[in-house]
Amino acid sequence: MQVAEAQQVQLQNQKQQHQHHHHHHHTQETTPMCKKKIQQVQDENKVAVAAVEGEDLLIPPLNFAMVDNGIFRSGFPEPSNFSFLQTLRLRSIIYLCPEPYPEANLEFLKSNGIKLYHFGIEGHKEPFVNIPEDTIREALKVVLDVRNHPVIIHCKRGKHRTGCLVGCYRKLQKWCLSSVFDEYQRFAAAKARVSDQRFVELFDISSMKHLPISFSCLKSSKGIILLLPFLE
Amino acid sequence: MQVAEAQQVQLQNQKQQHQHHHHHHHTQETTPMCKKKIQQVQDENKVAVAAVEGEDLLIPPLNFAMVDNGIFRSGFPEPSNFSFLQTLRLRSIIYLCPEPYPEANLEFLKSNGIKLYHFGIEGHKEPFVNIPEDTIREALKVVLDVRNHPVIIHCKRGKHRTGCLVGCYRKLQKWCLSSVFDEYQRFAAAKARVSDQRFVELFDISSMKHLPISFSCLKSSKGIILLLPFLE
Repeated sequence: MQVAEAQQVQLQNQKQQHQHHHHHHHTQETTPMCKKKIQQVQDENKVAVAAVEGEDLLIPPLNFAMVDNGIFRSGFPEPSNFSFLQTLRLRSIIYLCPEPYPEANLEFLKSNGIKLYHFGIEGHKEPFVNIPEDTIREALKVVLDVRNHPVIIHCKRGKHRTGCLVGCYRKLQKWCLSSVFDEYQRFAAAKARVSDQRFVELFDISSMKHLPISFSCLKSSKGIILLLPFLE
Repeated sequence: MQVAEAQQVQLQNQKQQHQHHHHHHHTQETTPMCKKKIQQVQDENKVAVAAVEGEDLLIPPLNFAMVDNGIFRSGFPEPSNFSFLQTLRLRSIIYLCPEPYPEANLEFLKSNGIKLYHFGIEGHKEPFVNIPEDTIREALKVVLDVRNHPVIIHCKRGKHRTGCLVGCYRKLQKWCLSSVFDEYQRFAAAKARVSDQRFVELFDISSMKHLPISFSCLKSSKGIILLLPFLE
């Protein structure tokens, strides 16, 4: 993409923003709020264009995937993944290992205004299993709170601890267990643990079901985000 | 969730919709467009609440996953997957097999207002490989056009044809090839084909790079969708 084309994109967006706003107010041509919005979209496009324009390829973290609107999962992000992570415009990171976060990663968070939620879950191997249900429950609340979105969940390899948390999230979404396990196994592959899957199966969602947050990730087809307040 | 709570959620959304609209027009309290929007969100909430309220579990199609904002992938959807698919509020389906779409699936599309894009790609097995680059390119344009979102891409098992299309999409997103192949293999597993991966590697994205559509899926962290027009 050339610079001229990039400008064209911005102009088209600007035009569309105008059109979009026309739907809402017929009395005014361009409000200060509208102008501010256009500027914001233009600024964001510059970032987007810069990211895709460069010849450098992006390196997603190990086992990276999108879980749902505004929710991602992966293994431990290395500095080589930072440019990729910037394209996600993360608001927060959920880190599930007890080890302290590396200095380089903390710097990355700081310079990008990303909040870290650190839940130290030991990476037990079978048959010494002890996944703390309370910790998963607390982490799940962070996942469900749209004020934290976009959020990425990660542990070390994005298989077990991350797989358990995502599995519990799928239960809240009412996925049948076979589909939850299928997804778990897709990421854990040869390292899949029956104990993790049993944990997900036995995880009690009844205490969370009454919270409206269970709908937090349902969005309309029109792209409107239903921002539901998180009930503490 | 009880009915009383469901209503509360709707009220909260209604309130938030009002607040949202306040940003755009300060002169009017509630325009007809605003009222229409609130009604729309309320209706959508009813569907969402109904889906999550019921005791029935949802069954995602085989190999179901989220690719990006508004883009999903899967194997062939069976009638047992229809309730799940309704929660995605699909606008279109990209079907990559030459076989005609089953009557039950056509009915589902009709009653849910979903558009079908049918690209008949033969499911060749190695070493008789012939993935039509032009067809993948046309399908990719449908994927990139946000007017088709939310869209689900599917073939028979969601491994090869779907994997090739998603792989080409990742190239447009500038993912490094090792990550593209890692994702392909996660879905194809034991059925992974070197020929599919070679197709993705050799797929020429230079003719598509100049189109602004390559940014169509980049969304701001504020949830604003950058609706870029699709250039024919």
